Amino acid sequence: MEKLNESMLIDFYEFTMAHGYFDSPHRNQTVYFDLSFRRIPNDGGYAVMAGLESVVRFIENLTFSDEDIAYLRGRGIFNEEFLDYLANFEFTGDIYAVKEGTVVFPNEPILTVRASAPEAQLLETYLLLTINHQTLIATKASRIKHAASGRTVIEMGARRAHGASSANLGARAAYIGGADMTSNTLADRLYTVPAGGTMAHSWVQMFENEYEAFKRYAELYPNMATFLVDTYDTLQSGVPNAIKVIKDVLIPAGYERYAIRIDSGDLTYLSKEARRLLDEAGLEECRIVASNALDEYLIRALLNQGAPIDIFGVGERLITAKSDPVFGGVYKLTAVEKDGRIDPKIKISDNVEKITTPHFKKLYRIYDKQGHAAADLLTVHDETIDTDKPLTLFDPTHTWKRQTFRTYSVENLLIPIIKQGERVYDLPDVESIRAHREASMNRLWDEVKRFDYPHIYYVDLSEKLWNIKHELITAHAMPKEKNG
Amino acid sequence: MEKLNESMLIDFYEFTMAHGYFDSPHRNQTVYFDLSFRRIPNDGGYAVMAGLESVVRFIENLTFSDEDIAYLRGRGIFNEEFLDYLANFEFTGDIYAVKEGTVVFPNEPILTVRASAPEAQLLETYLLLTINHQTLIATKASRIKHAASGRTVIEMGARRAHGASSANLGARAAYIGGADMTSNTLADRLYTVPAGGTMAHSWVQMFENEYEAFKRYAELYPNMATFLVDTYDTLQSGVPNAIKVIKDVLIPAGYERYAIRIDSGDLTYLSKEARRLLDEAGLEECRIVASNALDEYLIRALLNQGAPIDIFGVGERLITAKSDPVFGGVYKLTAVEKDGRIDPKIKISDNVEKITTPHFKKLYRIYDKQGHAAADLLTVHDETIDTDKPLTLFDPTHTWKRQTFRTYSVENLLIPIIKQGERVYDLPDVESIRAHREASMNRLWDEVKRFDYPHIYYVDLSEKLWNIKHELITAHAMPKEKNG
Repeated sequence: MEKLNESMLIDFYEFTMAHGYFDSPHRNQTVYFDLSFRRIPNDGGYAVMAGLESVVRFIENLTFSDEDIAYLRGRGIFNEEFLDYLANFEFTGDIYAVKEGTVVFPNEPILTVRASAPEAQLLETYLLLTINHQTLIATKASRIKHAASGRTVIEMGARRAHGASSANLGARAAYIGGADMTSNTLADRLYTVPAGGTMAHSWVQMFENEYEAFKRYAELYPNMATFLVDTYDTLQSGVPNAIKVIKDVLIPAGYERYAIRIDSGDLTYLSKEARRLLDEAGLEECRIVASNALDEYLIRALLNQGAPIDIFGVGERLITAKSDPVFGGVYKLTAVEKDGRIDPKIKISDNVEKITTPHFKKLYRIYDKQGHAAADLLTVHDETIDTDKPLTLFDPTHTWKRQTFRTYSVENLLIPIIKQGERVYDLPDVESIRAHREASMNRLWDEVKRFDYPHIYYVDLSEKLWNIKHELITAHAMPKEKNG
Repeated sequence: MEKLNESMLIDFYEFTMAHGYFDSPHRNQTVYFDLSFRRIPNDGGYAVMAGLESVVRFIENLTFSDEDIAYLRGRGIFNEEFLDYLANFEFTGDIYAVKEGTVVFPNEPILTVRASAPEAQLLETYLLLTINHQTLIATKASRIKHAASGRTVIEMGARRAHGASSANLGARAAYIGGADMTSNTLADRLYTVPAGGTMAHSWVQMFENEYEAFKRYAELYPNMATFLVDTYDTLQSGVPNAIKVIKDVLIPAGYERYAIRIDSGDLTYLSKEARRLLDEAGLEECRIVASNALDEYLIRALLNQGAPIDIFGVGERLITAKSDPVFGGVYKLTAVEKDGRIDPKIKISDNVEKITTPHFKKLYRIYDKQGHAAADLLTVHDETIDTDKPLTLFDPTHTWKRQTFRTYSVENLLIPIIKQGERVYDLPDVESIRAHREASMNRLWDEVKRFDYPHIYYVDLSEKLWNIKHELITAHAMPKEKNG
């Protein structure tokens, strides 16, 4: 296949800006960018961070080939010194990030870049696309797994994914978020996400009749027989044939794990009737898999109606995050270094929620005495929290709303990943990330995890940071006079 | 970067089924699969075929590495003969497809595979994901371009794409569909989609003030200056500073192409006020670019309100097809060869629209005497149309609805792409595909292209094919008796 050098997956304006900085006093100026997001898809209460491994791989491989340089030269707007800089490009800055699998919230930095202006600008596109995509899917998967109330969830959306990386990295993100398996073999090869699957309708059609098709499958794969029962007629033909094959082939040979899969029709009605037929045949152990455009809302509805489904196969609505397919992470300048000092920067907007929080920051998670995550606190980078002393947090908008913690613990969530271009963080395997996600979710109150009107988790600013932000807003606010 | 062998981007069940066919009389049986879709996203009237080039590249590179084989062996369910077959895999079948850029409709084959059963099964996942993704985005882009009524559309969604291939092949599909440019440099390098772009808010923040930021940019890129005017205050600061820089730097040096970009706020109000300020300053030639979560519906609303916008930058809602992000193509067995005969196959479903149209087929487009596309006609593979004779088409459901063409022309849309494993089709460049899309769209009635309740384009069956389908339905329909 195409050997993809993804380094050029950079919006063209990053090059024009980087060239502009390069050709000016900003060339070696150290700047700080935060990657953060403003809202959670589906108005959910939390998001699950994912994509850091891809970010690290991108930065470690960020080089421009001779062909890339020739392409840029051909544009006729970049000087040779800049092209030479790109030809020898190596990232020399720092990356701080929240670990994959951690639950994260709006308006906090989940990744911070400290680098020269041209370097920081060249990272923007890929960092955003990677974190946006994978966090979107991990978050969606965690909701689906939550709705499934402990039942197994299989990610099977490859055929409806938005291209190869959507299928591959989407399967990885879904696994981090809580899916138990994927249909996509390449996700197993690349990221050790367990892949599995059984049969399509075409298998059933290829044989003289449904019984023969099921029988052949059971003989070949007696340990993993899931019979797709809706090719002709689920209750009249599919389930009876599955029962017959289980009794003719699997039970005599001592096998005990088998299932049927229903992929169309009214899943509540069909699963209840199928369960009845299976139980009447004495096959209480036979499990029922359901699929067909499922998501967290449909799974909740099915379970509320008492559908006896054991395993959910989730395709297009997970891999595309169909109900809300955009994760809106942004990458904003928060500070520049000048004369050895860190000078905070702000972006003002008429939309109050688009005003950025300036400065190089730390992100602390505050746990109450029961160990629940109670709030996140942004501070200036040089602030520390002495947990021997009470901690008072205040709402950044309604500042009279205050709460004081006396017995509490804190966790520094933004940890160094790359320092001066060198990785200082061991990338965990996908199983560890998945376990970390579960632990991180477990420390959330259920009220934050519910789908409808979840509790808005607190993300507060330290008093020092709040003051800096408000001084900058005041300084930038121009006196408004109506024209005309 | 990761050197991706995408061959393993195959749902695991394709391997279990292929292995099952391999180990049976189906091993060398020739089968036919159709790729088709049942509905158009957003209840639109047409879709734009895209993804064929990726399909060809996949098939031409479909091989399994030693590591892939070792992985499959490790699963413990495949016999050595099958693994050996995969280790030496080469596609030896035929592919027929509709050209990229052609408008296509539900319930017609847009791609047909004729191959041995194991080969045809192994193609399923990748063919679906590729055609589904790229057709989705090309279709969405064509709607956005249609809404823009001749104005320029820039695809700038890379940062919100679902991974790298979503950004790269999405940009290509958007260009085929009608976008005029992309922000993504790699899409230009890989697929010659013109890439461009100017500045982000960070550029403006990096300078002492907005005027200095604009001035420096104008000096560097006098030929492509688009000033992002909403970093601080669009009308009080951004537009006045842009006007000043145009007059101080660009006009004295003889430059005539410049624009402002508005990326937040009420785009109708701000574009009207900005237009007024520009015109009052004598800069009637300065164009206005607008962006911020645009799609075909918002663009239509903006233009209906008289917003004087010249260029639309379209990001997340195009690259993710946000309003309806799933293109539901399916891949269904339609026939098997047996004793030298083609034996048609059908998949029945309680959902009538999920019943497949059997057989190895041809797809004809019928043009009326004015050259408009009037209907598509599916026939059995060996039928021909004699355009010297009248042609009567009938509605496949309401068969009394008939129309007869006397002066008409026909086009065979499913053309051979690969024959016996060898490509027999020259892949056109992206500019030709884009021109073909425009020509194909131009032959549609406007009623098919409108967004609300479009005319449902006719997709009919020949009498011979209709009879075969109904014989199979009747043969498969089992007498229904209610249980219990």
